[in-house]
Amino acid sequence: MDKMINSQRIDSVKDYLLSLQFQICDELTQRDSKLKKVRDPWDRPNGGGGITCAFEDGKIFEKAGVNFSHVFGGHLPPSATNSRPDLKGASFQAMGVSLVIHPDNPFVPTSHMNVRYFEAIRDGKVLAWWFGGGFDLTPYYPFIEDVVHWHTVARESCDFPSLNKNLYTEFKEACDHYFYLKHRDETRGVGGLFFDDFNRWDFQDCFQLLKQIGDAFIPAYFFIVDRRKDSNYGIREKSFQAYRRGRYVEFNLVLDRGTHFGLQSGGRTESILMSLPPKAEWRYDWHPEPNSAEAELYNNYLKKQNWLKR
Amino acid sequence: MDKMINSQRIDSVKDYLLSLQFQICDELTQRDSKLKKVRDPWDRPNGGGGITCAFEDGKIFEKAGVNFSHVFGGHLPPSATNSRPDLKGASFQAMGVSLVIHPDNPFVPTSHMNVRYFEAIRDGKVLAWWFGGGFDLTPYYPFIEDVVHWHTVARESCDFPSLNKNLYTEFKEACDHYFYLKHRDETRGVGGLFFDDFNRWDFQDCFQLLKQIGDAFIPAYFFIVDRRKDSNYGIREKSFQAYRRGRYVEFNLVLDRGTHFGLQSGGRTESILMSLPPKAEWRYDWHPEPNSAEAELYNNYLKKQNWLKR
Repeated sequence: MDKMINSQRIDSVKDYLLSLQFQICDELTQRDSKLKKVRDPWDRPNGGGGITCAFEDGKIFEKAGVNFSHVFGGHLPPSATNSRPDLKGASFQAMGVSLVIHPDNPFVPTSHMNVRYFEAIRDGKVLAWWFGGGFDLTPYYPFIEDVVHWHTVARESCDFPSLNKNLYTEFKEACDHYFYLKHRDETRGVGGLFFDDFNRWDFQDCFQLLKQIGDAFIPAYFFIVDRRKDSNYGIREKSFQAYRRGRYVEFNLVLDRGTHFGLQSGGRTESILMSLPPKAEWRYDWHPEPNSAEAELYNNYLKKQNWLKR
Repeated sequence: MDKMINSQRIDSVKDYLLSLQFQICDELTQRDSKLKKVRDPWDRPNGGGGITCAFEDGKIFEKAGVNFSHVFGGHLPPSATNSRPDLKGASFQAMGVSLVIHPDNPFVPTSHMNVRYFEAIRDGKVLAWWFGGGFDLTPYYPFIEDVVHWHTVARESCDFPSLNKNLYTEFKEACDHYFYLKHRDETRGVGGLFFDDFNRWDFQDCFQLLKQIGDAFIPAYFFIVDRRKDSNYGIREKSFQAYRRGRYVEFNLVLDRGTHFGLQSGGRTESILMSLPPKAEWRYDWHPEPNSAEAELYNNYLKKQNWLKR
């Protein structure tokens, strides 16, 4: 593997990621003429940078962030090589798109998506590469048909006929495992896909799978947005949404590895914490009324389960 | 040191902590007849328990929690003995009072206080004991005279004439160091006192110092509450308070060692997260207008400094 191939790979992944970012930003602004957008290119002092697109105060979307970053450096940090001593001190490149969308209407779920590529390089040779990412959905007032739609699109995106594989079940289980709040004994939402260190096929096939998953986010999510964005709601629903957004904050700040790594490694704070909701609330030992719409979320949705077995 | 002495110590510290909890709850309810109070005794499955006093929706206090806990167990968890291998597998007792008060009026600061005692025991012998704790103040719209009052009372509480010592400077610097958000390059507020592993004098003197600090919280804080609780404010001030409360959430969930240890060790989630504010907000890359009241906080208060050198 020579430098040339390495650089073509980086370029082709970068092209894809930037076009995905552009497309998703377009999906947001197309639907919401009130949405305020800030496009913020930034440099990383130790190498690389990114483009943060932040959205606020729309009619449909209360707050959203779609971030592209491409960082590189001469030495992998020790925390990144604990389990891979062979990569110690190698130079690296990491790039990805990550987004969180917090809609205004409590009947529209919050969603998160991330696709990323990593390479470790020494003396012009690629020592290791992998892809990672996924998407997950966090409803407040869930509809079973939305969840089935989300997982159906997720399953289709994992289909890989040329290798006769479908990795949906594996990635879906990894998602349930990752987006779990142990201290609450709740899943973050209804899950989706999660994968990391993915290099088990050749580069082009792995990249193809990444593209399928990244592209699938758009029909998976915006279909639900369009279906629910005009639902009627009042103070009660906004208040429950704010309370549940507290769980989103707990997950991102206590448990999310990307957030912790980013903040500890001196990443760009505003881009990392762009995932946080516009508002969150905490009440002591609050529980939903039995048989209420709010109890429905706890009883039937915040538990790991097979959504497509119906 | 025999079991008898051990048990007398535990009892005397426990008596003090419970009376401090009672007294502080009384200060809250006395001032605020609208305040809703829940007194929640709880058991810890692996030994011990506590009494959580939670307050919500008052006229003066928007949300507050005053928690007593006394936990014990047959084996210290590995995370607690990494730096003290001699304590490996010892049984332990830990007790403390910890509180956070989030007032409604943005001109009244949020405050936090904690006093705690720890003992490791093997074969009926106390292998190690120490005290820890402190208090810190987080204003939104600060007044220099309030900060000077807070630190003056803090300094008085650290005075120990019988040993000719005053540990204010040491504990004040430890507080600035601990309550610092590196990812924001901001202190949490204007600091106060912080100490841990404190056993450098004999038990009675150490305990006496703990009591002085615990008792001092009341005049240090409630004097400020009474002075500012009727200040006029509007939407702008509530909105800035909610935004700054986002920082409080970031500190507690990303950085606070007690919160992390508590959640990871299977502590009681609602008692641990009682410290979180009623509401918090996040906006992308928000900065105060130059020369505004909000800029005053950033420019002159969220930096480590000597408050009493005036």
